[in-house]
Amino acid sequence: MKKLKAIFHVNETENWKKTLINVTNFVNDVGEGNAEVEILANGAAVLFYTGEEEDRYEQMKRLAGRGVQFLACRNALKMHSLGEESLYPFVRTVPAGITEIVRRQGEGFAYIKP
Amino acid sequence: MKKLKAIFHVNETENWKKTLINVTNFVNDVGEGNAEVEILANGAAVLFYTGEEEDRYEQMKRLAGRGVQFLACRNALKMHSLGEESLYPFVRTVPAGITEIVRRQGEGFAYIKP
Amino acid sequence: MKKLKAIFHVNETENWKKTLINVTNFVNDVGEGNAEVEILANGAAVLFYTGEEEDRYEQMKRLAGRGVQFLACRNALKMHSLGEESLYPFVRTVPAGITEIVRRQGEGFAYIKP
Repeated sequence: MKKLKAIFHVNETENWKKTLINVTNFVNDVGEGNAEVEILANGAAVLFYTGEEEDRYEQMKRLAGRGVQFLACRNALKMHSLGEESLYPFVRTVPAGITEIVRRQGEGFAYIKP
Repeated sequence: MKKLKAIFHVNETENWKKTLINVTNFVNDVGEGNAEVEILANGAAVLFYTGEEEDRYEQMKRLAGRGVQFLACRNALKMHSLGEESLYPFVRTVPAGITEIVRRQGEGFAYIKP
Repeated sequence: MKKLKAIFHVNETENWKKTLINVTNFVNDVGEGNAEVEILANGAAVLFYTGEEEDRYEQMKRLAGRGVQFLACRNALKMHSLGEESLYPFVRTVPAGITEIVRRQGEGFAYIKP
């Protein structure tokens, strides 16, 4: 089976909850070996890649362990004065979040805005 | 003319109004024989596939009569304790809404989040 | 290098700020000669294509000068009783915003909903 590829776009902190539920349901539905999933956070959404909120951290870490890629936009980090070293260890930074979204769609990733 | 294919994603009840206006304008513009349209509801948006709100029901039914497919995510129905038998008769349930969106984009459907 | 093509969809006035930041970052990142960018406003978002708000106007004009296309949905203009002659001079009107989005995605434009 060809892998299903999808990039999820989160740009507000209040959309994280929906996003994590959507991604979990998707990976459960198709099986983690059959999906290639990225979550791209820009805007204020990068604020949820840091901090002590245990539940969210655990939920993200579990998904990262199942192969989901968590990405942060460097422009957004600068705008919110967040250093890369303060992010959860499974988060990777990209120079410009929108460029990542545009390139991925060009490579056949579906776009989803939860 | 090749059919224009589009999937509309609704995940909050307050986005239904915009969605139904967008879909109506689109079908009016291209002609119902030239479009293949799905509306996929997940999250709390599935709550608007049931109930007594006459105007909304009539507007949806009219679009269904013009070929628009109304879909509900089964995960969302469970989460909101909604039985399939309580949904409007023109609504079809899919096992996982996000999978439907990803597959459809892979088949050339445009994605729109009103 | 092949041009990166993207269409940004704005349907609420409160999403304009994010959209203009996203587009600016994107054009800065890839270089204006390497990108083909459209911003399609429908719904209430068309209200920000008019009026005296200097900062927004200047920011849009600057992007227009760098090749970004600003589009307005004619259905939305009618709904908000806005004449085309009242819009900023760099704004182009399309008959139906959703049709533009669907066609562009069919031509390889990535879709982004800021």
